Amino acid sequence: MILGKVVGTVWATRKDEKLVGLKLMIVRHVELDYKLKNTYVVAVDSVGAGVGEIVLVTSGSSARQSALTEGKPVDAVISGIIDKLDISVK
Amino acid sequence: MILGKVVGTVWATRKDEKLVGLKLMIVRHVELDYKLKNTYVVAVDSVGAGVGEIVLVTSGSSARQSALTEGKPVDAVISGIIDKLDISVK
Amino acid sequence: MILGKVVGTVWATRKDEKLVGLKLMIVRHVELDYKLKNTYVVAVDSVGAGVGEIVLVTSGSSARQSALTEGKPVDAVISGIIDKLDISVK
Amino acid sequence: MILGKVVGTVWATRKDEKLVGLKLMIVRHVELDYKLKNTYVVAVDSVGAGVGEIVLVTSGSSARQSALTEGKPVDAVISGIIDKLDISVK
Amino acid sequence: MILGKVVGTVWATRKDEKLVGLKLMIVRHVELDYKLKNTYVVAVDSVGAGVGEIVLVTSGSSARQSALTEGKPVDAVISGIIDKLDISVK
Repeated sequence: MILGKVVGTVWATRKDEKLVGLKLMIVRHVELDYKLKNTYVVAVDSVGAGVGEIVLVTSGSSARQSALTEGKPVDAVISGIIDKLDISVK
Repeated sequence: MILGKVVGTVWATRKDEKLVGLKLMIVRHVELDYKLKNTYVVAVDSVGAGVGEIVLVTSGSSARQSALTEGKPVDAVISGIIDKLDISVK
Repeated sequence: MILGKVVGTVWATRKDEKLVGLKLMIVRHVELDYKLKNTYVVAVDSVGAGVGEIVLVTSGSSARQSALTEGKPVDAVISGIIDKLDISVK
Repeated sequence: MILGKVVGTVWATRKDEKLVGLKLMIVRHVELDYKLKNTYVVAVDSVGAGVGEIVLVTSGSSARQSALTEGKPVDAVISGIIDKLDISVK
Repeated sequence: MILGKVVGTVWATRKDEKLVGLKLMIVRHVELDYKLKNTYVVAVDSVGAGVGEIVLVTSGSSARQSALTEGKPVDAVISGIIDKLDISVK
């Protein structure tokens, strides 16, 4: 999984019918100190994440292992909201 | 998923028989301000996307979760057409 | 899918028995103007592609969705031969 | 698989219910001389890895092939703890 | 698939039980002239590859399509040993 920061949402009226009702969030990748990277991913929210939160993102076929995304054309899902990172080795 | 801009179409007469009838679009990856990146992907259109539109692209095995692409040698599908992005965190 | 140019073939006598009989081609990735990139992939040919041709390559688990590659340790397959690209947006 | 060094742990109270009880470790990628790279991945620990250890990380759908991760939204798992690397070709 | 050179082996006593008995090789990626790249992957050997040999590596879920790796947390497998490359287009 990777870590990212939710920076916004995606509006798409015309889409695959299996995506209807799913919340599509824009997640900027972050470093371990939460500094924003230049890359991003659009991920389905399955945990009630809000804009500004640091989240865990699961990618690939594993993104379809949540109740919300099973069998859908989804390759990234927000699977957790980060409380904190405990980093003890630099 | 990632965001891209449809810039053209691919013509291929000789192809895997499962690809016959599918529309293959050239999608340039974009930044969050829709600026074109140098990279691209060829994706199957499943939502009626037109050239010039900003689209959502689903990759990997998840690209086979649309009605149009199931069981086919397709690793990228246009799964939505973007109306707008709401970006509230910079 | 990505676009590439077939630049050669791979000879491998000792290999997984499921790969026996498959034609392994070396495909250099190309830009949208067919300029060669520095990267390449070894892909199974399922459409009779010849050296010098521009081809469509399907990757990942989707590469196993052709009749020739099903159930085999193949992560890239040539799934089409490009006639031309119609690019209308720059 | 890739090699990495466990540098810390992730705390996430709100997460997909299938992730409850799994230990999420932060793994920095390493070179073959164990020098830390700038990239990292969050992986589920399935072998009792400790902070500071060099580990083997399995990614993608294969990360769900351990008893602990089957059917869960997990795309990276620590599948081994490295004793040493025997490198005989430079 | 990609091409690499086997440069060594990985020793890991503590590992996922499904990995017991599998030979883990360190494979450095190579250019088409066999020049070593700076990147590497740890792959399971399924064809009796030796250190110093140039090999074909299959990645992702396709790495689990060999008799040796089926159902195991393996995302890269050595699926062939290269005799030679025939490159006719530069």
